[in-house]
Order: sequence, then structure tokens, then C-alpha cells
Amino acid sequence: MRRIRFVCDYVGTRFSGWQRQADKDTVQQRIEEALQKLTGEEKINVVASGRTDAGVHALAQVAHFDTETQFDEIAYVRGTNNYLPPDIRILSAQETDESFHARFSAVRKTYCYRCYVATEERAIYHNRAHRVRGKLDVESIRAAADILQGKHDFASFMSTGSEVKTTVRTLFAIKIERVGEELFFYLTADGFLYNMVRKIVAFLLDVGSGKKTVDDAANALEHPDVRSLTAVAPACGLYLVSVEYPS
Amino acid sequence: MRRIRFVCDYVGTRFSGWQRQADKDTVQQRIEEALQKLTGEEKINVVASGRTDAGVHALAQVAHFDTETQFDEIAYVRGTNNYLPPDIRILSAQETDESFHARFSAVRKTYCYRCYVATEERAIYHNRAHRVRGKLDVESIRAAADILQGKHDFASFMSTGSEVKTTVRTLFAIKIERVGEELFFYLTADGFLYNMVRKIVAFLLDVGSGKKTVDDAANALEHPDVRSLTAVAPACGLYLVSVEYPS
Repeated sequence: MRRIRFVCDYVGTRFSGWQRQADKDTVQQRIEEALQKLTGEEKINVVASGRTDAGVHALAQVAHFDTETQFDEIAYVRGTNNYLPPDIRILSAQETDESFHARFSAVRKTYCYRCYVATEERAIYHNRAHRVRGKLDVESIRAAADILQGKHDFASFMSTGSEVKTTVRTLFAIKIERVGEELFFYLTADGFLYNMVRKIVAFLLDVGSGKKTVDDAANALEHPDVRSLTAVAPACGLYLVSVEYPS
Repeated sequence: MRRIRFVCDYVGTRFSGWQRQADKDTVQQRIEEALQKLTGEEKINVVASGRTDAGVHALAQVAHFDTETQFDEIAYVRGTNNYLPPDIRILSAQETDESFHARFSAVRKTYCYRCYVATEERAIYHNRAHRVRGKLDVESIRAAADILQGKHDFASFMSTGSEVKTTVRTLFAIKIERVGEELFFYLTADGFLYNMVRKIVAFLLDVGSGKKTVDDAANALEHPDVRSLTAVAPACGLYLVSVEYPS
């Protein structure tokens, strides 16, 4: 038995997220089916660093699987890609020892949320970025983002629907980059609660448009409550950028 | 009769280019049909700054049409978008006098060609950028690009298939930007011959990989011959960025 760790990217638009579900087209199922074809008849279970929701993209999702096959590492890349649609690609693969677990070994993740400010929607960003109307005060967004950084109970920035032992997470950094009409939010944490990035981004966009204040950020952390903030930014703007493991 | 000038963007992937053709799904036909629905029953002919080929994208194509309708300018934007698929969007519209012609009044155009350097294809760039394998010598690319700038007979960088009075064009600038694994070629000229951007980019990539030399650039200009260079970079990496008119 060998354990193979791999990196893949995907455009989430036409998939019902990462995780296998009955009667849904998911990234996990596509990759498992491709690996089954590649390996002959092995029934392979692929474990990712975490699931991504329907419509969410990944630039570098990390996953692992166990196999009896003894292919060269590159064969797991190119052989699997032969059986995958072009909107899912295996980018690299390497043998790893069994102490590595794509989900449990992950120590930090980075997501990017991509917006653009425009009065009309643009075709070029369709399903790839979230349109924001009106002017945004980026300085206020940055001030609120600074407050959210650090180790906090992020229950206010979570959606219900998944069980977690604790709602405390360490948000190492939120970086906001403006490039012309585009606005990129980069968030790095030791882990993210369900919809945490999309709730933080929705909140920060509300700060930018004046609907919320910088003080509301402190308040949401001081009074952690899953019901306090309801806005969730759309899935199409969200990209899993990287997953880090102990070296 | 009023003349309306508008700007639109589109993702060219699923269209057979801009220009209307029997039994093909084209951007021009989609916009003309949307305008016909918007205006009731007017049969509207849309004239663009130039056609784009199948799979080529536009960030800001400029076009005009004549109409008997007296809508507000914003209605031509939002009303038309109601009848368009999300991969074609009208971005703005304004009334103009009849001396304006989207094609004949254009004085310069800018295209961007987008590549990425990677051993494996990436899902995120599928149909959006052209993958290049191996290392590229960007300094050689820039040196060859410098030679191509200026007023020259670009027949060597043209494909046959369209009639032109002259193959002389003025290439005001070629800018090459490297951002991580991505490489962007920005070309601005008073006009482009058929496949000119895609042939120049294919040539420059060959310079970058050592298959062509900087001297070959000078040679191709000194001996203009439509048959001398055969490589054409794929359509998916090409974006019409802007069209300029006398102010």
C-alpha cells in the first residue's frame, strides 16, 4: 500500500462542490472515478484538505489516497488527467508516508475572494468574481479586517450546518489588494468555519459601503453568535489558494 | 434615426467569433437578436470595430447601431442584457452622431495575449490562457518585440483568408508583463492583419524557447512573406482589450 499526496485545481462552476453526494456531480467523485479507471479496478477513496462548496474554485487543493499500484508519480498526474474533464486538473503527485493526512495534517489554509466594482456585470467575470456596486471605502475595509485578525471566537462569521468542536480560529492575516476595478481578499487561518470566508467578505464589503462600521467588527467578535450576521458573499468569488503542512 | 455606440465584453469560448454566419452561434447575432427583442421589431445591424475569431475574448469591444427607438442610454445597456446570455454583456451605451463608425473611425486597438508557463495544464486557465511548457527567456522575447515595434510590412505575421489593401501597419507598442507563472503580451497598433497578434505571439514564444532568434524578427520584417511563419498561438489566450477613437 502506498499513500499518494496530490495537488489539483478546479473551476467549481459546474460542480456541486468537492464532496461526493448521491446524484450530484462533484469534484471528489470525478477524481475517484478517474483514478479507478487509471488503476484498473481499484476502488479509491480520495481525502481532501477540506470540502469546498458548490461553485467555489480551487487553485491548489491538496488531497491524498491509498493505492496498491506502483506507477511513477507523473503517471498519477497525467494518467488521471486523461480521465478528467478540463475543468479539473491534477497538477502534481508524490508518494508520502502514512502519517500524512490531507485533512488532519493541514496547519493553515489560504483563501482568496475576488470582487470587482462596476455598475454593470461583466461577462469576463461571470462565475469567476463577485460584482459589487457603488464605491467602496477600502481604508475602512482594511481597518475592520485588522480587527478580525488574530485568535478569536468566529461564531458570528459562521453559517450553521456543520458540527465543530470549537468556533475559535486563528486568522493569521487578511490582506486586501486593489487592482483597478478588482478587489482581492486573501485570508490565511489555521482553519475556517463553515462559510467563514464568505461571511467575513460580505461583512467587510458592508463596511466598505457604509452599511457596517469598524466597531461592528469588534462587536461581532465580542459577542460571538451564529445568528448575528446573515450576509454571505456568493460562492463564485471564492478560491482555495493553498494548504500548508508541517515541513 | 439615432446612432448608438456601445461597449461590450464577452467570453469567446462557446461562440464562433463575432461575425454573423449561417448556422453558427456568434456574438453579433446574439446582440442583434437581443436588440430586436428590446426594440420590439426593429431589424438592427450591429457594426463592431472588427471581428474576433472563434474562441477569442473581448474586454471592451466597441460597436454601433442605428435605431428609431428613443430609449434612455441605460436602457440600451440593461434592456439588451436582459436578452443576452451572461457570457456577453453590454457595459455602456451612448448616443453619437452619424460620423462615428465603430470600424472606420477606430484609430488604434490594443490586444492582450495571455500565457502561463507550466508543466501541466491548469483547470483555472482552461479556455482563458495558453499554456507554454519549459523555460522562456523573457529578455530575448523583449528584444525581438522591440524590433517588431514601429511601422512595417507585417505580411510575415499574417494568415491568408482576408483581403487587405496593404499589409503595412504601425505597431505602436508591445509590452510584456510577467506575473508569477503568467505572461501577458500587450500589443497596440493602428490595425491588425488577420491572425497578426497570434502569429507575433507564437513567434515571440519561439524566440523565448530558443527555436527562433532575435535576428529572425528583423528578417521576417525585411522579407515580408505570408508563407514564412506558420505558427499561430491558440485563440483562447487572445483578448481584445480596447479600441480608441479620435476624441
